[in-house]
Order: sequence, then structure tokens, then C-alpha cells
Amino acid sequence: MVSTRNPLNIGASARAMANFGFSCLRVVNPYDVAFREARSAVGAAPLLARAQDFTTLADAVADCRLVIGTTSVGHRELQHPIRRLEYGARLILRAAARAPIALLFGSEKFGLSNDELSHCDWLMRIPTAGRDLSMNLGQAVALCLYELARDPKAAAARPGKIRSATAGELEQITTQLLEVLRRSGYVNPRTATSTEEKVRRLVHRLEIPGKDAPVLLGMLRQVLWKLGPSPEP
Amino acid sequence: MVSTRNPLNIGASARAMANFGFSCLRVVNPYDVAFREARSAVGAAPLLARAQDFTTLADAVADCRLVIGTTSVGHRELQHPIRRLEYGARLILRAAARAPIALLFGSEKFGLSNDELSHCDWLMRIPTAGRDLSMNLGQAVALCLYELARDPKAAAARPGKIRSATAGELEQITTQLLEVLRRSGYVNPRTATSTEEKVRRLVHRLEIPGKDAPVLLGMLRQVLWKLGPSPEP
Repeated sequence: MVSTRNPLNIGASARAMANFGFSCLRVVNPYDVAFREARSAVGAAPLLARAQDFTTLADAVADCRLVIGTTSVGHRELQHPIRRLEYGARLILRAAARAPIALLFGSEKFGLSNDELSHCDWLMRIPTAGRDLSMNLGQAVALCLYELARDPKAAAARPGKIRSATAGELEQITTQLLEVLRRSGYVNPRTATSTEEKVRRLVHRLEIPGKDAPVLLGMLRQVLWKLGPSPEP
Repeated sequence: MVSTRNPLNIGASARAMANFGFSCLRVVNPYDVAFREARSAVGAAPLLARAQDFTTLADAVADCRLVIGTTSVGHRELQHPIRRLEYGARLILRAAARAPIALLFGSEKFGLSNDELSHCDWLMRIPTAGRDLSMNLGQAVALCLYELARDPKAAAARPGKIRSATAGELEQITTQLLEVLRRSGYVNPRTATSTEEKVRRLVHRLEIPGKDAPVLLGMLRQVLWKLGPSPEP
């Protein structure tokens, strides 16, 4: 993080790093007060306590094999190749397997300066709907780290299985519900058979989870008790 | 956004919405002061000015066909299916093509309450490295919207083509550089041939972009001029 001014942004970035499993934070020329304040942010203490403080960007990235700047683009004529976050993150992950990589974030107000950009091998851009929309710094950091930590396989994952009620449970519910409707006078004896089928189809359409079947049966049983014995046909 | 307390979070969320092309913000029971302050946040004015204010969650989501809660999990026994952001976003996009969908974010301190969760069809979780790590609210909103707006095809995109220098340009550079080295006394006449090959291979390894070839040639020409005429062999 280069020349960061707002301690909330350093804190939020450190928190995002912890959230997504990154551990090496380097700050270049932060406002001293901001940096000290950020060190006291909730949930990021160990990571910030280990953060290294540099006075020049060159020193901060000296041991890195690849230096990537982040940008919202649009404001200056950029001399670098720019890659969208989705693609850039893949390149970073591939390179990160071999050597340390620096991901640079500029100041809240101006982003990375031309001098700072000249240390970069290429730039990464968060794709936004508008062209000149700026991003909150803490959010930008979170988005980049999220994309790096993102599991492409998870996008195709199967949902957590919800065990559906068995046909037997559905039939119990159907039977009890029909009994409630009969005792309530809802069922016309002349159309009783078609009503039974309608109710059964309705119960099947509800996609009742298995664990809810006993709850529904308990409700129906209580209503039946309250309704009293079946009227004579 | 339900019971949001910090105006910075409402502002940052509105900004992320604008960034990723979302326009309908609804707030339920925000701190009045916070909401008024947020309305003055940079870059989010039109979106916040249109934000609707509700006193109950039920009213806020009444016209939605699908209600999805967001959670960091871990703190309570959740009764809902939970989907990872990568997968949940795919489901949301599919459903959003047909009907309005609500994405709920709870208060900074407590997240969504059990009562609020009972309005949800399912829950979405941002996958983090640690289990009990909480996320900054503004960052959580940005991550969810980013994933919804994310273009999976972009991950496989080709990098912006950088036109490499042609073999002819590389040979010019090699020739000029060799001349500089000769006039500087770097080249041992007895090993001149092997030096020439070494230099040519080095120049080819550099992967010089086409637009940098004239710059390098200009530098070499200037150095040659300063070095003066070639010494007699």
C-alpha cells in the first residue's frame, strides 16, 4: 500500500488479507498517524503488527519477481499492458507458485503515480460498469484478494443436499391434512375423491424437507385434537 | 441493508452498486442519521437519493420472488441451505432473469437476526480462510456484487497483445550495441565472433516491445556519437 492516507483503509485491507489467507503487508510512506491507528483495528492485529514500513517503493518491492499495479484506468495514458482482474489473477497465481509477487495499491486520492507505475511489470483493473468510477480502497483490496483466493471449481459446486421428505411422510401429511379438512367441513362428500387427489398433488409440490415433516404432522395432529371427533358421515 | 449503523458502509455499498451496475437499494431501519449522512457520500448520490426506506423487512422484500441472506456463518445454528458466493451468484443470476431478487445484508455488529433470516429462501457465504473471521460490511457488499457482475469468460481472456520488435529491429539494436562495445574497448578482437553471438542472443532474450526499439536505437546512437569514431583495428 503506497501513500495510504486513511487508517480505516489500511485496517480494512489487513482484515481482507486475513480473511483470504494473505500475510505479508508492506506499506510505503503511509501517514504515520494513520498507520499507528490502523494497527489497532479489530481482527487484523497480528498481520498489521508484522507489517513492514518502507520509505521508497523500490525498497518495498526489491525482492519481488513480479510487480503488479492496480488501477481504475481512465485518468492517464497508461504505458503498461492492463489486464482485467479475472484474467490477471490467473497470471498472478501461476507466477506466485515460483516467486514472490507484489500487488500495489496507490493512495486513495490519486492512485499510483507515474513514477510508481514505472516499477510495475503490468497493471490490473477491476472491471466496473462505468469507466471513470472510482473504488473505495479497502473494497478494491478485498476484491483483488477475493479473486486470487476464489475457487473456480466452487462456481460449479452442487448445492448442499436437503433431504426431502419421503413419499411415506408426504402420504402421512396428506392423510392428516385431509382429515383436518374433512372435520372442518372443507370436503364436499360428493367430490371427496378428487379433493383427495388435489391435496396429495399440492403436498407433493411443496417440496417439504425431511426434517419439517414431523413438525407439520405435529401441527396437524394438534389441530385434529382441537377439532374433535369426525362428524358422522 | 438491514439495520445498518455506519453511514460509511451505506455509502461504500451504494458506490459498489454503482460500480457494478446495480441500482435498487432498499434500507430497513437504518440509523436515521447514518442514512442521511450516507446520502451525501461521493459518487453515490443518485443511487442513494433513490434508495427506499422501510420499517420492516417483510415490506422491503414483499415484491421479490427470491430472498437471499448473506452470512459469515459460525455464530449460530443455521436452518438454511448455505451456498458459497461463487455458486450462489450463478443461481441468483439464473433466477434474476425471471424475477426480482433481494440480497440481504445485516447489521455490522450482529449480521442478520434469526427473525430476519426466516424471511430468506437460502443463505450465501463469502468463503474466507478462517471460519470465524468477520468481513467489513462495505467489503462484503462489494464482493457479492463483483461476483454477480463477474465475467467468467474474462478469466480465460487473452492478454492485450504487445507487438514485439521485429527481427530486423533486434538486429539493428545488436549491431549498434556491438559498435558501442567495440569503441568502448569491451570487445576482445580475438573473441569478437563469440561476443557478437552472445550479444545477439542477449538482445533476443530481452523481449523488446516494438515501440521501444526506436528508443533504444536512439540511446545507442547518442552514446556512439559521444564515444567518437571507431579506433583503428
